[in-house]
Amino acid sequence: MDPFFEIRLQPAPRGARQAAQTIFSQLREAIVAGRLAMGTRLPPPRRAKEYFGISRNTATEVYERLRLDGFISTRPGSGSYVAHHSRRRGWRRRPLAAATPDRRLNAFWLAPETEAALNFWRENVPVTAARDAVDLRPALIDSRLFPLDLFRQVTTKSLRDLERRPPRLKSPQGNQGNYSLREGIAKHLALTRAVACDPDSILVTAGAQQAFDIVARTLISPARNKVAVEDPGYPPLRVPFAAAGAQIVPVPVDAEGLCVEALPSDVAVICVCPSHQFPLGSTLSAMRRRALLQFARARGAVILEDDYDGEFRHGQQASEPLRAENTADVVIYVGTFSKCMLPSLRLGYLIAPDWALGAMITAKNALDWHCPTPLQIATAAFISGGHLARHVRRMRRIYEERRGIVTRVIQSRMAPLLEIVPSTYGIQIAAFARQSTKCEHLAAQLAADGVRIHSLDRYYLGKERRDGFVFGLGTADTEALQRGLKKVQEVLETADSSRAARRRVGRSAQE
Amino acid sequence: MDPFFEIRLQPAPRGARQAAQTIFSQLREAIVAGRLAMGTRLPPPRRAKEYFGISRNTATEVYERLRLDGFISTRPGSGSYVAHHSRRRGWRRRPLAAATPDRRLNAFWLAPETEAALNFWRENVPVTAARDAVDLRPALIDSRLFPLDLFRQVTTKSLRDLERRPPRLKSPQGNQGNYSLREGIAKHLALTRAVACDPDSILVTAGAQQAFDIVARTLISPARNKVAVEDPGYPPLRVPFAAAGAQIVPVPVDAEGLCVEALPSDVAVICVCPSHQFPLGSTLSAMRRRALLQFARARGAVILEDDYDGEFRHGQQASEPLRAENTADVVIYVGTFSKCMLPSLRLGYLIAPDWALGAMITAKNALDWHCPTPLQIATAAFISGGHLARHVRRMRRIYEERRGIVTRVIQSRMAPLLEIVPSTYGIQIAAFARQSTKCEHLAAQLAADGVRIHSLDRYYLGKERRDGFVFGLGTADTEALQRGLKKVQEVLETADSSRAARRRVGRSAQE
Repeated sequence: MDPFFEIRLQPAPRGARQAAQTIFSQLREAIVAGRLAMGTRLPPPRRAKEYFGISRNTATEVYERLRLDGFISTRPGSGSYVAHHSRRRGWRRRPLAAATPDRRLNAFWLAPETEAALNFWRENVPVTAARDAVDLRPALIDSRLFPLDLFRQVTTKSLRDLERRPPRLKSPQGNQGNYSLREGIAKHLALTRAVACDPDSILVTAGAQQAFDIVARTLISPARNKVAVEDPGYPPLRVPFAAAGAQIVPVPVDAEGLCVEALPSDVAVICVCPSHQFPLGSTLSAMRRRALLQFARARGAVILEDDYDGEFRHGQQASEPLRAENTADVVIYVGTFSKCMLPSLRLGYLIAPDWALGAMITAKNALDWHCPTPLQIATAAFISGGHLARHVRRMRRIYEERRGIVTRVIQSRMAPLLEIVPSTYGIQIAAFARQSTKCEHLAAQLAADGVRIHSLDRYYLGKERRDGFVFGLGTADTEALQRGLKKVQEVLETADSSRAARRRVGRSAQE
Repeated sequence: MDPFFEIRLQPAPRGARQAAQTIFSQLREAIVAGRLAMGTRLPPPRRAKEYFGISRNTATEVYERLRLDGFISTRPGSGSYVAHHSRRRGWRRRPLAAATPDRRLNAFWLAPETEAALNFWRENVPVTAARDAVDLRPALIDSRLFPLDLFRQVTTKSLRDLERRPPRLKSPQGNQGNYSLREGIAKHLALTRAVACDPDSILVTAGAQQAFDIVARTLISPARNKVAVEDPGYPPLRVPFAAAGAQIVPVPVDAEGLCVEALPSDVAVICVCPSHQFPLGSTLSAMRRRALLQFARARGAVILEDDYDGEFRHGQQASEPLRAENTADVVIYVGTFSKCMLPSLRLGYLIAPDWALGAMITAKNALDWHCPTPLQIATAAFISGGHLARHVRRMRRIYEERRGIVTRVIQSRMAPLLEIVPSTYGIQIAAFARQSTKCEHLAAQLAADGVRIHSLDRYYLGKERRDGFVFGLGTADTEALQRGLKKVQEVLETADSSRAARRRVGRSAQE
């Protein structure tokens, strides 16, 4: 038997339903009692017969229930593991050497907080794979709308150029990214974001995620380890900072964006999406912008501006990036090609202040030297050929249309239930529930009905939370959006009427 | 004036030579006296007129002299900085928050050791760009010999497939690499290295460098932080480990490979190239292999096997990887496509033990989610089409031919000067000097004459060192090799005769 899984269970009775219940109870009991330690890997469902005497399907069902109840967690391609059963808030700052399944591992990577932050986009329940399924999760895009055919032509051509000039393929260690791509990024930013920057200030990264990692590694040290993140915010951003030893401080967000007055005075890095807060969508007000910059300068803090979907802004909107010529000393701007092109390209970039650039290039080189040259030159050619600008213009219209539908439907049909968080552009819309509502529970119901949607719960880190949903505009077309919204309305109305019924019962009991 | 550069210098006299000397002396003096602190950035040569009253070319020359003397260091694309002028050995284990030019930075990335390890392949002197220049540096390959045309065709085709199956382009967060690529890697390893492994044990990484980083981050913790590296060894491997807080312990290498008896008993990770030591080329003997595995099992250490050029092994040679079915619990195997395909692809992989795989996937996902999908599927198609196997077979013959030339020339013409380190295959050959020789100094002379070659000096970390050269077979064809070897012979013979002359002078002075 597997050395990591040596507990004895009662044999399962006949009948899938009873068998599932028996095995579920025993596993749960073993986890609660500590006989199955945190991090223990459960046998794969395909070997369930051998271990539990139940079928693969029944085991999958048992695991799902354990997972929903927070007893186990699943890592893709790796299996199911016993989770830590006390649900703690916040991040552990020290690795838990003693509690790991193998003491050779740095336990940070096994901590439930790490896993939860990286898996925030996953459903907690099995999703019904209906033909009319709707995906309303944010931070996704519709790759079917990307002009892959054009990208392929551009790639082919740029690889052919490489054959003519093979020396350019030599691994240029100690570099900050292909120069033509950095020129393209500068052009793209000038066009879509009115950011003026020198290609020499740009470092090409493997997506925004690696940019976060590079910032974390170069700016966090034992002496300066406090990092402020927006709450609610993008959970995966927290992981590289926590891995670098940072103490993550959640800072509330209101209608004006990040509450600057709530920042801790000794914060080293302030992570913020000033143009389109993730996931709420609000814009940092002009007053808050000034306060934030003033705070950073006065306290020696650095601002990490995550501008994940700034390209989709409209011309007339006053949401310029924080990063401007006169703020280039305190703002690190992070951009990505995941939203405006494809996430699978794994290309992003950061614009660093002069004083930090050298260290950041060194860190990037130490991590993986540089991003793949063929992809960099293909993306550069895609930009210089005008394809990116055209694609962004097209997608801006599409996302705008989808925003309109979500806004209209919520305002006309769900006004008593949901309150839209005002925002002017972008690829998601958030809405608060007007009454206390178990939105994560409703999201699970919706998933069973083929609608994937995130409640706001999974974006919060601190204790202050508001109920609500995030409506991602990335993958559902107008027809699917309508269908998805209708189902959201249904579960909300049902929840509302049962709440009302409970209130009536409560009142008549008092009378 | 730049706030980071505020020292006053005497004006430079007329005449480039005197001006250079004056500015050089004053800068050196300011650095030694500490008026120019470590990490201070020097003005760019193009602004030399404004700062020093000298021309750009003169400033470049002054900087080169300061760099050769170890007073400043240069970061590509970033400029010249004052180096730490006391040359310390080993790695600092704590960041030097107080000594950085900007206290907001984690000083690890500014430490001279970090920079030196990442820039080990760079020349310390300007290289004459002669038309008959020869590049004998190791760890490089000849990208002109890569069948780029085939790779382009395969890329085009696989991108076309993507258009037909767009869902595969969705960013598959929480993944360990494209499955078809992992299948291809398993096939490639079975064919070239007789390694049997399951695609499910493979994690695709951004080259070997990121594999080192992932291993460092998942296996190093404050409680287990000692890492043994071969000495001499591959300097860039040390950086991610040191960045993760590891204490780097250099362990000597002799004719049988790593000296297992010199390993510290509490070592967490042992980094080794058992098949073809880098840079010496020796093979770990069968006895040492057994001892190493036994040591790792007894002490709870993990072996990182870096098999950077194992593909170029011949059929009859008995240099199987350490990683086999019965060692899969203690060996992490790291492979790369940088040597057998192109370094600019930034693709590599690791095969992890079951107990470590989950944590390593989580770490990879936290760093950059996954490697670019288009490159992964193109490489998978390149393997499954048999192109990689054909290319490896062809390159094996070419490298073998080049090995033959280097071996014959050294043995026939430089036997009194150099002693070849025995090795059976691979893309570099090392040779020890028979007499104490300042090889790094000779390498600088050779660079001025258009021959880039590395002395063994830059691969050592500890105090015990041997003089010698590494002959890289990656980029020079047979004709260039002959020319380069002739020049190496010349400088060695000149050095030898002046040594003999000094001895004669010494003797006659004694008489």
